[in-house]
Amino acid sequence: MAERFPTRICGVTLDLIALFDLFGVFVFAISGALAAVRKDMDIFGVTMIALFPAVGGGTLRDIILDVPVFWVVDTTPVWVTFAAAVISFFLSPLLESRLRVLIWADAFGLALFAVLGAGKALDATGSVLIAVMMGVATGVVGGMIRDVVCNDLPLVLRREIYATAAFAGAGTFCLLRGLNVQEDISLWVSVAGAFAVRAAGILLGLSLPRPPR
Amino acid sequence: MAERFPTRICGVTLDLIALFDLFGVFVFAISGALAAVRKDMDIFGVTMIALFPAVGGGTLRDIILDVPVFWVVDTTPVWVTFAAAVISFFLSPLLESRLRVLIWADAFGLALFAVLGAGKALDATGSVLIAVMMGVATGVVGGMIRDVVCNDLPLVLRREIYATAAFAGAGTFCLLRGLNVQEDISLWVSVAGAFAVRAAGILLGLSLPRPPR
Amino acid sequence: MAERFPTRICGVTLDLIALFDLFGVFVFAISGALAAVRKDMDIFGVTMIALFPAVGGGTLRDIILDVPVFWVVDTTPVWVTFAAAVISFFLSPLLESRLRVLIWADAFGLALFAVLGAGKALDATGSVLIAVMMGVATGVVGGMIRDVVCNDLPLVLRREIYATAAFAGAGTFCLLRGLNVQEDISLWVSVAGAFAVRAAGILLGLSLPRPPR
Repeated sequence: MAERFPTRICGVTLDLIALFDLFGVFVFAISGALAAVRKDMDIFGVTMIALFPAVGGGTLRDIILDVPVFWVVDTTPVWVTFAAAVISFFLSPLLESRLRVLIWADAFGLALFAVLGAGKALDATGSVLIAVMMGVATGVVGGMIRDVVCNDLPLVLRREIYATAAFAGAGTFCLLRGLNVQEDISLWVSVAGAFAVRAAGILLGLSLPRPPR
Repeated sequence: MAERFPTRICGVTLDLIALFDLFGVFVFAISGALAAVRKDMDIFGVTMIALFPAVGGGTLRDIILDVPVFWVVDTTPVWVTFAAAVISFFLSPLLESRLRVLIWADAFGLALFAVLGAGKALDATGSVLIAVMMGVATGVVGGMIRDVVCNDLPLVLRREIYATAAFAGAGTFCLLRGLNVQEDISLWVSVAGAFAVRAAGILLGLSLPRPPR
Repeated sequence: MAERFPTRICGVTLDLIALFDLFGVFVFAISGALAAVRKDMDIFGVTMIALFPAVGGGTLRDIILDVPVFWVVDTTPVWVTFAAAVISFFLSPLLESRLRVLIWADAFGLALFAVLGAGKALDATGSVLIAVMMGVATGVVGGMIRDVVCNDLPLVLRREIYATAAFAGAGTFCLLRGLNVQEDISLWVSVAGAFAVRAAGILLGLSLPRPPR
């Protein structure tokens, strides 16, 4: 899933998708760090909790697929998480006042994680079903672990559309790949789709129908 | 652990144990889906929570044994879980009114999961200790994850005999295998034993003695 | 990480570090077993919960590093955990009255687990960052799982220095190894350092500063 948009800046080759992926890690790490700051934890506790949403979902995905865990192979996401933790620790009042911005950044991270996770699983197993499941897991499981460890009401129990957006992104990506659409287009269309679904949940307070009683 | 009771129906060769195993997955999935429905989650949330009890214990077992995760190799259990989630979502009032039936189905699933999990671990490691532990994990851990994620009082904290039944089944199976009893007999005697222990817990409200104070 | 201090007692070669490691397992297992006894669980439940702190952190470490899970390779820690569970089950009032002693034993276990975990990860990956992270995970994650499953306030949310001590131990060990200090010295200096940090937390009620508000 790498080296699609290589760009050269100051002699350094940059991969746009990898950059966006690290942005997702950064945003998810902030969500964990702020939850830990709210619980009055120290800098080490904040860093540890930040790791759960930032790399937890992808770690579970890699373990289930039996491929090397991504942040053991390349530790950049860990350093990005550390940076997010330190920033959150010292600037939490500022960040909390920007919660609205963070929700949108989180929506983008969710969309990207779900699609990239599905892509990695599709490459590893060739199974659309496993790809969609791993896409949802990459996007959602890290936040679940954060909530469970922090004793917060788990994210998945909240009413707003969330896992559904991950599902939409992962599903769209597998569909477009199955139709042999060019990979970059598949990727960004799927990310946009997942983001749009999540945005509908945020903006309209939209939620899927609940079970009949 | 396959192809013991091959039966032919309409030209399709069926493996009885695999069928029963899928029945266990189905019943465990319903337990997760109903817990999610009670939390007022949408269909994607219900499906995700259904996966925890249905495949969570076996997933942990396979990861610890470092063998391929069973539902990545053969996705049938995932489809069965999806079916259980959809049925639970739309028919939850009906299922809730049949809770008594579900408890017995769950007891059967627990017994079968524990014995099949022990068998798989025994084949993989040759260690009776690891086999018994993995049998209990296969039967019990999925439900624990479901309860933790759903913010319910964890199953293992409830008074009734539960883990004990899994232990009885896994232990009996290893004992009978050690005595070179024919594999099918070992399997069904152990399942019956685990089921009987759990039944005693359900019917008589029986529980093992608590620690002296 | 083995066979450094081989000692012969009655013709049996003993490895001091392995012995201390098992002592750590024993103490961590007691912490889990006592939590389970407080929840009024039966002997099988107590044993299961005892396993989480005793082997949970190291299990996660081994799975992430993709090396064989340590207690599947050598089941001694499992038997030690069983012994701790049985002792805790029958002697919980005695142990509860010795809580002060247990806190110090736990501090030693934490220090040793963090350092040995870091050493194992350093050998497996060569990365100091991964080593420090796996050291902290080995020391802290098992207790987190115990608290989450038992519905207790997670350890990491408590104010006292805890993860910080694991970090100090794992970090010191990596530093000394990087300076080519002899391995036994690195090990014991790091363990002493982690223990001292934790001791400061216990004795002085010391905690790191919390985030600015």
